[in-house]
Amino acid sequence: MTTGHIFIATSLDGFIASPDGTIDWLIQHTNPDEDHGYDAFMAQIDVIVMGRGTYQTVLAFDPWPYALPVVVLSRSLAAEEVPTHLAGQVRITALPPRAVMAGLAAEGYKRAYIDGGQIIQAFLRDGLIADMVITRVPVLIGSGRSLFGPLDGTDIALRHLQTQSFPSGLVQSRYQIAG
Amino acid sequence: MTTGHIFIATSLDGFIASPDGTIDWLIQHTNPDEDHGYDAFMAQIDVIVMGRGTYQTVLAFDPWPYALPVVVLSRSLAAEEVPTHLAGQVRITALPPRAVMAGLAAEGYKRAYIDGGQIIQAFLRDGLIADMVITRVPVLIGSGRSLFGPLDGTDIALRHLQTQSFPSGLVQSRYQIAG
Repeated sequence: MTTGHIFIATSLDGFIASPDGTIDWLIQHTNPDEDHGYDAFMAQIDVIVMGRGTYQTVLAFDPWPYALPVVVLSRSLAAEEVPTHLAGQVRITALPPRAVMAGLAAEGYKRAYIDGGQIIQAFLRDGLIADMVITRVPVLIGSGRSLFGPLDGTDIALRHLQTQSFPSGLVQSRYQIAG
Repeated sequence: MTTGHIFIATSLDGFIASPDGTIDWLIQHTNPDEDHGYDAFMAQIDVIVMGRGTYQTVLAFDPWPYALPVVVLSRSLAAEEVPTHLAGQVRITALPPRAVMAGLAAEGYKRAYIDGGQIIQAFLRDGLIADMVITRVPVLIGSGRSLFGPLDGTDIALRHLQTQSFPSGLVQSRYQIAG
């Protein structure tokens, strides 16, 4: 099975975006000169899986920021909604997480970057995440879109691998999913 | 004004207790031989402020665990509900957070340990917290009582002071409230 990997920043109170989806608080508290390891992380990834919300945010970027193939999980977007300039780079699927990962494994993909709050929660619940890098931004924003969400009644134990802090105040921890 | 100080453990998804108030997940993932700095923290504290929930949990402990004076914030408990063996050590007040801290300052108290989820959130909203030590336990529990809660529409910026991790996987960060 292709393994899922998370690399994401949250406010100290656990939000990945403000209620309206913006991340001004993140930009404000991050030093762009600091290397938080995103490039090193992505160098170990061969496919990206994201939800509709993340996809539609990224679609507004020019140029398209990814060199790797992107799979968008959506039950509402149609496959033909991929712009022609992204054909071959982006595909849309309505399959559930396990089937997506099994399909990617059959195509030879080893490690998938799983991005977007709803998608991360679904993949965690389905046991499809191998490890995660969580970067805590030193701010409380009070409300917004949560990184984590409800589980199916069973705790998920983690193994802490490493933590480092940065002069900007960001604290980055790496965890493996235990068991 | 007396300053408020927090020292608390949370699951990686931000809960200080399970939905029923228990902390089995915390006990399970903590090594009692590790020194997480609680005694050193408490040595800098001269009064404890807690909510009714925390108080009623601690009341069940035998012996009473605190040497410092304890102030319980509650609008429903009456002052006479303090057991006789705790008279002089525990007092109950219905005053709001600012008035409590002003009163403690007038009595000469400098640094208050603020404990309990609801109380911590209220004191943060009222700008009464000077710094906090947050210890992240490497487990996701999915639901429970949150450390943090809604704010009044203004972000609270923090200054990261220090982070250390422990062999058990606990990650402890110290923050000052900025501004």
